[in-house]
Amino acid sequence: MRSKLFVPGARPELFAKALASDADAISIDLEDAVPDDRKAEARDAVRAFLASEAALRSGKQLIVRVNALGSPHFEADLRAVACASLSLVNLPKIESAADVQRAAAVLAHAQTLGRCEGSDIRLLANIETPRALRAAHEIAAAHPKLWGLQLGLGDLFEPHGIDRRTPANVHAAMFAVAMAAAEAGVACCDGAFPDLQDEAGLRAEAQMSRALGFVGKSCIHPRQVAVCNEAFRPDAEKLAQARRIVDAAAQATAQGRGAFVVDGKMIDAPFLARARRLLAIHDEKKK
Amino acid sequence: MRSKLFVPGARPELFAKALASDADAISIDLEDAVPDDRKAEARDAVRAFLASEAALRSGKQLIVRVNALGSPHFEADLRAVACASLSLVNLPKIESAADVQRAAAVLAHAQTLGRCEGSDIRLLANIETPRALRAAHEIAAAHPKLWGLQLGLGDLFEPHGIDRRTPANVHAAMFAVAMAAAEAGVACCDGAFPDLQDEAGLRAEAQMSRALGFVGKSCIHPRQVAVCNEAFRPDAEKLAQARRIVDAAAQATAQGRGAFVVDGKMIDAPFLARARRLLAIHDEKKK
Amino acid sequence: MRSKLFVPGARPELFAKALASDADAISIDLEDAVPDDRKAEARDAVRAFLASEAALRSGKQLIVRVNALGSPHFEADLRAVACASLSLVNLPKIESAADVQRAAAVLAHAQTLGRCEGSDIRLLANIETPRALRAAHEIAAAHPKLWGLQLGLGDLFEPHGIDRRTPANVHAAMFAVAMAAAEAGVACCDGAFPDLQDEAGLRAEAQMSRALGFVGKSCIHPRQVAVCNEAFRPDAEKLAQARRIVDAAAQATAQGRGAFVVDGKMIDAPFLARARRLLAIHDEKKK
Repeated sequence: MRSKLFVPGARPELFAKALASDADAISIDLEDAVPDDRKAEARDAVRAFLASEAALRSGKQLIVRVNALGSPHFEADLRAVACASLSLVNLPKIESAADVQRAAAVLAHAQTLGRCEGSDIRLLANIETPRALRAAHEIAAAHPKLWGLQLGLGDLFEPHGIDRRTPANVHAAMFAVAMAAAEAGVACCDGAFPDLQDEAGLRAEAQMSRALGFVGKSCIHPRQVAVCNEAFRPDAEKLAQARRIVDAAAQATAQGRGAFVVDGKMIDAPFLARARRLLAIHDEKKK
Repeated sequence: MRSKLFVPGARPELFAKALASDADAISIDLEDAVPDDRKAEARDAVRAFLASEAALRSGKQLIVRVNALGSPHFEADLRAVACASLSLVNLPKIESAADVQRAAAVLAHAQTLGRCEGSDIRLLANIETPRALRAAHEIAAAHPKLWGLQLGLGDLFEPHGIDRRTPANVHAAMFAVAMAAAEAGVACCDGAFPDLQDEAGLRAEAQMSRALGFVGKSCIHPRQVAVCNEAFRPDAEKLAQARRIVDAAAQATAQGRGAFVVDGKMIDAPFLARARRLLAIHDEKKK
Repeated sequence: MRSKLFVPGARPELFAKALASDADAISIDLEDAVPDDRKAEARDAVRAFLASEAALRSGKQLIVRVNALGSPHFEADLRAVACASLSLVNLPKIESAADVQRAAAVLAHAQTLGRCEGSDIRLLANIETPRALRAAHEIAAAHPKLWGLQLGLGDLFEPHGIDRRTPANVHAAMFAVAMAAAEAGVACCDGAFPDLQDEAGLRAEAQMSRALGFVGKSCIHPRQVAVCNEAFRPDAEKLAQARRIVDAAAQATAQGRGAFVVDGKMIDAPFLARARRLLAIHDEKKK
């Protein structure tokens, strides 16, 4: 899920266009992009889209950002979207493990009502307040249905006058999310880069989060997709090195040695684990 | 409170000079700048100064850094300074929510004794030990009288051999304080830059903390005031952009659209909140 | 302990060579560097080495990294190494205060069995998982036998796809460990730099951790020792400045002044504490 293209829920004419893009995932928004008096209309449009042949056959990850837990729209949103083609429910403004657990319960109920209990719909929790950043490790470990954490820098920084374009600020928030996701063994996704004109800025931010283990990044416009797909693509030289490491490990084991050196680096257990994981991701992609 | 000029409590001849400076606030120190055998004398001088016409009419924020909670001077300090002209009591070496609550109780008692219960004297807690940095979110949320957090890098870093001039070290501590203050909804103030000769270093540090939402910075000499006033001044281009954002929001609402674009950036709720906050601060300043 | 040279426990022919190096400490590894079917053999070699005249007379700090608490090797490892010449037991994969306390109990028992109860063998806990990084302050304060924290970036980052060569990633982990060690008043040690060919990278990383108060760095090859000894050496100019600060403090006290200025910097309590600590370390080294 290198790129996740954002589509306003109130603009169903864009859904097919998004499916035709090169984004690995589509994230339809029922929250901030939809004014209060159009929530029901947008929800119905999303429900119809998710049930369409185009959605079912798209091969893309389909995600819906619902309205916040505690808003009057949350339960109706989940009932509308809990169906076979949905991959992830994106939960805004999560601040505790209890929030995730409540959302999981509402989702399970919606799946029962919608007769899609068998579908593996999972949760993607937004980390977008200072409280959430502090509690990120609890949120990440809150429920087996939680698939990952999504960083939301605009909400995290802007209301507090924190500059979202200072790389050190961005890195500090990313590092906290990366550690929380790593501890719980869930994925972490980078949020959107807001300046559509600044491709170099987008690329630098994508490289920063990729270097912290994030799997991909949100895009607010199709023109951002290619940069993200490129930034989160496994690197051929790293794949070749990973193969050398795995081969050398097999040799070392055969010879009864523990540590060994590849390309001038001492390779121990975590390096080897990383090399194996990289190759596994790559092999999966080729299928 | 862009600039906060530090004045040793044992040097009352400097108080009038500090009032005449361009600093937004004056912070008189009864702690480290006053040797033990001159504590009582300094305290009396500060009491007299705070009761003076010059202080009452100054229009500056008046702050006193008292001796630490638990020192033999703490209660006497609070009784001396709790009076109408005081804005903030600056508390050194705070390490827990309980510390803030004890200080608030002593302050309330001192205000009763001094017959200034009606004055809105508030607390500024120093974050200047590793324990305090870890507990900063609890300290920030400890009591309604707490106005803000003040970062003290000298005490936080120097005893542990941590270099206070390495920007990454400084940023990491600032980020933790910024997040704690943001979560509790209180202000955060940057500490003093110790090298009087290095104006570029002072400016860079002020810009770093401003980009993290800090409201201002301590000054240990009047020559540092102008740099801080400049660094923490709202920027004309940002103000103009904020006005464009607020205007575009009004239009979007009128047209029933949720999200909208200003200057090539998708504007959602937190951007809009920040724009409104910036304009509010500016309008307040012009009055 | 500026440099700590890593030696695989399964290669006893390297032990004497390591003693002859310029490293301040030798760290013999019984964990990742020793395959499972050679654990007993390596343990016996280390036991013999620690009891040798060469080890007892070496003047170096001798450290053994044992297998993880909970592994079948942990207790046997401790029984083998708990003897008079050992300085530190290096504990891998520590994740909580309880882990440290269990290790301390096993060590005490091993010292009784080995009749070296009087030896001051202490613990060095590796911080090398996200959970450990989050709990580092509890781990650091867990037991009086704990001497310090050791950062292990390979294990912390590699399994999660976090790039260990991005300086901002490295700094964020180092800062967390530095704060935890500082709060508990224990030492912190930097881990190994994995690229033997990249001396500039090694030097930059050593300077980064030194600026965060780390006392030294692990070396995976003798050629890394000189760079670490240099990077963690007290700097002559800083020592001279420390002496000026201590002298000026004596003068200020004699004259009843609290704060004073040295080389254009306002010197207060933490600066003075740091100056005194630097001089103490230096004086100790000269003995």
